[in-house]
Amino acid sequence: MRRWSFAKGHGTENDFVLLLDREAMLHVGEAEVRLICDRHAGIGGDGLLRAVRAQHIPEWDGDGDLWFMDYRNADGSIAEMCGNGVRVFVRYLVDEGLAYGPVVPVATRAGVREAEMLPDGRIRVAMGPVVVAPEAVSIVTADGTAYSARPIDVGNPHAVSFTDDLSAVWLQTAPEYPTDAFPDGVNAEFVQRLGERHLGMRVFERGSGETRSCGTGTVAAAAAAHAERTPADDPRPALAEPATYRVDVLGGTVEVELGEQAYLTGPAVVVARGVMTIL
Amino acid sequence: MRRWSFAKGHGTENDFVLLLDREAMLHVGEAEVRLICDRHAGIGGDGLLRAVRAQHIPEWDGDGDLWFMDYRNADGSIAEMCGNGVRVFVRYLVDEGLAYGPVVPVATRAGVREAEMLPDGRIRVAMGPVVVAPEAVSIVTADGTAYSARPIDVGNPHAVSFTDDLSAVWLQTAPEYPTDAFPDGVNAEFVQRLGERHLGMRVFERGSGETRSCGTGTVAAAAAAHAERTPADDPRPALAEPATYRVDVLGGTVEVELGEQAYLTGPAVVVARGVMTIL
Repeated sequence: MRRWSFAKGHGTENDFVLLLDREAMLHVGEAEVRLICDRHAGIGGDGLLRAVRAQHIPEWDGDGDLWFMDYRNADGSIAEMCGNGVRVFVRYLVDEGLAYGPVVPVATRAGVREAEMLPDGRIRVAMGPVVVAPEAVSIVTADGTAYSARPIDVGNPHAVSFTDDLSAVWLQTAPEYPTDAFPDGVNAEFVQRLGERHLGMRVFERGSGETRSCGTGTVAAAAAAHAERTPADDPRPALAEPATYRVDVLGGTVEVELGEQAYLTGPAVVVARGVMTIL
Repeated sequence: MRRWSFAKGHGTENDFVLLLDREAMLHVGEAEVRLICDRHAGIGGDGLLRAVRAQHIPEWDGDGDLWFMDYRNADGSIAEMCGNGVRVFVRYLVDEGLAYGPVVPVATRAGVREAEMLPDGRIRVAMGPVVVAPEAVSIVTADGTAYSARPIDVGNPHAVSFTDDLSAVWLQTAPEYPTDAFPDGVNAEFVQRLGERHLGMRVFERGSGETRSCGTGTVAAAAAAHAERTPADDPRPALAEPATYRVDVLGGTVEVELGEQAYLTGPAVVVARGVMTIL
């Protein structure tokens, strides 16, 4: 029987269990992740964020003194990055005195992400380059509806579809996607235009199901909306003209800045801390 | 901002947040229950179990020194009793040194329930009288399927339907029930016979949705199955002939003894302890 210290937090209700494992002493395998993220038998979360010194991550070749965000989906699979997760991760590190603001660099599988604590309490995260694919693909929800989706890379793969009725999108089980276009799976966003640079979004995250928010997904949504205003032959249309989008998700509201670099700004809160028993 | 100590536990994956409030000093209103039981913005649970001295409960006229299990559904509504909840409640009290076994009496809105810690780690709870109604009612799931259901009272109201294909029962939203028969709502069980005195069960709990287990529901399921073997004009057929049923639910297995008194035996575990922030 193991007793592990944990915290639980969320960013726009995209929720995570946080584990402090500075020197990589914990064995956090798929079974442990699934149990911890199980909402009935464990703590429950959309994913798990393990805080570990980057020097202990074999594939990391950058600054070993950084905190590495080892992000796992609820099913135990590994994910590159999570925009809401970075905010919650940084809120946790700063609350615990493990890092100091206002700017905290975080090592992730998609590279270093800088997070800035804003005076209004929100956290602004540099999300790295956004790559919008020129060709659309087809995403089919389980009720048989086909959507024309734009593949977008935000350090992890997304497919963004537009709809006139967000509430009607069927997301109780996974949508189908072209596996040749997304060999590692894909997060599927469904977006409705609510106003000038104002979007509503729902998302089906690979490995988790429908969640109340997905940070990289909101960046992909804004980039997809913006791409339709720029020449189709520009592989990075979102970078051509700076713009700020408001994106409403089920769990709240975030702000996405597009430009030379994409930024995601939103709330992050740690709601509980404690010790859990792992049998 | 309030900081409350909590624990989280489950019995056959029917999970609860536990709050220690010995002298009834915490204000635990509907909003607090909903936040605490919210699986994304809070801790998450099928319900909340507040441990308070019975003398602080105005409607309690028994022994004031007992622990009262103030049980709330995830939506904030009050419930009389919960068989899995009593086991988790007693496990918590004994683990924390707040009560001593092997037999722990618990005050509930349905009266005193005695819980016995068995040598094999399971907990056996006296569930009080079971009353099986002679007349069936109709329960209609949201896909339009009508079931003939037996109303059963186990300190709280149940309607038990039998089916040949448990996996096909549509429980993603609430079934319809006759409100004149169940003015306070009802827990709807769907039961498949798996063998001699061996049942499979799924349940839609009022105020929570489909859960992985419901303790009083398993007692109702066993009583309904047993009732079909005894004369229909006996209002308490389950008491006529002692019998033990195994009931498999989504979250595990429990044992129900029918007789002069009904008993429910099953596992209970506390998986986490900590402090949460209530804004």
